[in-house]
Amino acid sequence: MKLELICTGEEVLAGQIVDTNAAWFADTMMDYGIECQRKTTVGDRLSDLVEIFQERSQHADIILVNGGLGPTSDDLSSEAAAQALGEPLVENSHWRQRLEDWFTRNGRVMSPSNLKQALLPESAVMIDNPLGTACGFAVKLNKAWLFFTPGVPFEFKAMVKEQFIPFLNERFAVGEPTQVTKLLTLGSGESALADKLLGLPLPDGITLGYRSFMPYIEIKLFARGEAAIDQIEHLVQQVKQHLGTAVVCRDCDGLDKAVHNLLVNSGHGLSIAESCTGGAITSGLVAFPGSSTYLHQGLVTYSNESKVKVLGVKPETLDDHGAVSIAVVEEMAIGARSILDSDYALATSGIAGPEGGTDEKPVGTVAIALATKNAVYSQMLKFPSRSRDLVRSMSSAVAYDMLRRDLAREAVIVDYPSAKRFAK
Amino acid sequence: MKLELICTGEEVLAGQIVDTNAAWFADTMMDYGIECQRKTTVGDRLSDLVEIFQERSQHADIILVNGGLGPTSDDLSSEAAAQALGEPLVENSHWRQRLEDWFTRNGRVMSPSNLKQALLPESAVMIDNPLGTACGFAVKLNKAWLFFTPGVPFEFKAMVKEQFIPFLNERFAVGEPTQVTKLLTLGSGESALADKLLGLPLPDGITLGYRSFMPYIEIKLFARGEAAIDQIEHLVQQVKQHLGTAVVCRDCDGLDKAVHNLLVNSGHGLSIAESCTGGAITSGLVAFPGSSTYLHQGLVTYSNESKVKVLGVKPETLDDHGAVSIAVVEEMAIGARSILDSDYALATSGIAGPEGGTDEKPVGTVAIALATKNAVYSQMLKFPSRSRDLVRSMSSAVAYDMLRRDLAREAVIVDYPSAKRFAK
Repeated sequence: MKLELICTGEEVLAGQIVDTNAAWFADTMMDYGIECQRKTTVGDRLSDLVEIFQERSQHADIILVNGGLGPTSDDLSSEAAAQALGEPLVENSHWRQRLEDWFTRNGRVMSPSNLKQALLPESAVMIDNPLGTACGFAVKLNKAWLFFTPGVPFEFKAMVKEQFIPFLNERFAVGEPTQVTKLLTLGSGESALADKLLGLPLPDGITLGYRSFMPYIEIKLFARGEAAIDQIEHLVQQVKQHLGTAVVCRDCDGLDKAVHNLLVNSGHGLSIAESCTGGAITSGLVAFPGSSTYLHQGLVTYSNESKVKVLGVKPETLDDHGAVSIAVVEEMAIGARSILDSDYALATSGIAGPEGGTDEKPVGTVAIALATKNAVYSQMLKFPSRSRDLVRSMSSAVAYDMLRRDLAREAVIVDYPSAKRFAK
Repeated sequence: MKLELICTGEEVLAGQIVDTNAAWFADTMMDYGIECQRKTTVGDRLSDLVEIFQERSQHADIILVNGGLGPTSDDLSSEAAAQALGEPLVENSHWRQRLEDWFTRNGRVMSPSNLKQALLPESAVMIDNPLGTACGFAVKLNKAWLFFTPGVPFEFKAMVKEQFIPFLNERFAVGEPTQVTKLLTLGSGESALADKLLGLPLPDGITLGYRSFMPYIEIKLFARGEAAIDQIEHLVQQVKQHLGTAVVCRDCDGLDKAVHNLLVNSGHGLSIAESCTGGAITSGLVAFPGSSTYLHQGLVTYSNESKVKVLGVKPETLDDHGAVSIAVVEEMAIGARSILDSDYALATSGIAGPEGGTDEKPVGTVAIALATKNAVYSQMLKFPSRSRDLVRSMSSAVAYDMLRRDLAREAVIVDYPSAKRFAK
């Protein structure tokens, strides 16, 4: 089965918005073991749309079209599909009723332009959209099914999961059971991971994929068929054996989310003292609703004076060891924890660059500590210094990982492949 | 002139990375008044690449191709171009020398696979890449020039600006002078802005575009030709008149960057106390190298206890007014400023949602204060509550704007179109 994607809209083509729907779609299809073979983006000109539908429908088996289902004059997907088919547009009475109900329910007056959203090509199969006023639809053109979806991301994603996947399974009998398992890794590049897994024999029906989102690389183990699914668990253990502590999390979207879930469930309180990470650790957790239940405070003590006044770091510790040191970051964690007697405190102090490095402590040097009610754990690492963002995100990830490990009763201090360790 | 873009690489097609090169390219071309008419993404199969080069070169005048110039076996752009042209690959002795020099200079041994990067189609014009080991090249196929660029973002961007634009100007005589002026707006949707500017007559040669990046909408005034450029200044004033305080910045990339520059230049110190923004204001500034010269501290006092202990907010103020109030946020700003006697302090406290709203203070209610050495400014606003991210980014932007206004000696408190104001 050949699957292609067509994205429409001037705002996508003109780079006014980054095309996250397309990346999400291709990534999601990979979860079902389906590869998207081509992606085309066109603007809002009717002739361009008709041309691309006619052209690609001669090559693909199924084409997902995204965007152009709105009520305004530059939403032309339905009209273009009708022209490509040589069919009239016909009002879909079912969807017209849904539109009227929707506007009544939301206490708004339906404008005549919205009626356009009930006009579909004569041969179209309507696709329900419980979340918005744009219904999807599917038409058969040349050798391909064209499946039209709205551009609004949450409507698009719901329609792909709830309507498009079943549509695919029904028509293309991709219906064998599939399963995807994701392992999050930290501190290794994709090629280094691939090299380490080179000798690992993959059972029939299991494929391996990689996705990079700074500072992580996610490894996807995709299994098709009962026999392959039965082998996944064994393979996961083998991958973990080959990669060691580089694997930090299974089936999670990032260590921030993993830590958030662990803290919400455990009821433990957290304070954070940040220097080089500059609020990234705190901000990462605050992004999740419910973080107020465990997050006491996040203190970005960027200047030495602030470390002394807010956290109680001793001036002589700063003088003797420098701000980027095990001694200072331990006092930061202890100070942050004691203000509200939190169960945990994390602290970071480092040199994110591009300036500020020395021979002894080059750019990328970061000290990280975790204080608990009973102990203080700390380490000073040298991360790759390619960019300020990378140093900050690696530091945040290691801090989260230290806390995650303590909450999961694992060893708090472990090695990460690309980080060099300073002696204590 | 018809311009198209072809992006190559499984990792782009499979959604493993979001295609930011493409968005950046289209946006940058708009700065030169050139519209990208189609974007196609294909994987790493040689036959797919040959097919797409042959197909699109019959329609476009110029095609920018991105990616596939690396040393590994799945980098096939050069070979595919040669096949599409029916030409052999020939070693470019100039680039071979550059590769050897590059590896010597970096103290590394060149692997045989790198020599591949000096192989170009026989008729290719080599395009210099001072930043990496992948040279670009241009070939004429059918009616189009194909211009090949590396996938690494900073190499790609430099090549577009320094080589592709002059290449375009030379061959397509788009050489009329152009100028783009950008106005950053806050608090209005794109359609609301467009409605307000509907009556504004645009002089010949000037076009208007919009780009949305939360929480801003950027308005681009693009002028082509001397006569149009002469009118830009007058038009900017008219746009500002129509939009009022919605325009917050001219030719800047965000209020965080604007505030950063103002603080670096003024030598003033800043402390920040955040609640609902959760470190976003601090983190936004720390992202810029040099922020350590002015940023004293950023205190995310998420819990009430932390507001009391760290900032010295009075417990009775919290009891009488609630954490989300003008009174509390003023005490937060005063407290944060006084710890290190900073010149400025910003403070926020609000309800980011989706939970936590009340009838009196619904989700989206945020109090923001700016303390200076002489005064405290504060306001409580109700932002649109579509998402937690939007509330947080709008709040951060208004906080930055208050500080920017004071630094620029403008009125600190102004109205933002989509924000409702609470009475003091």
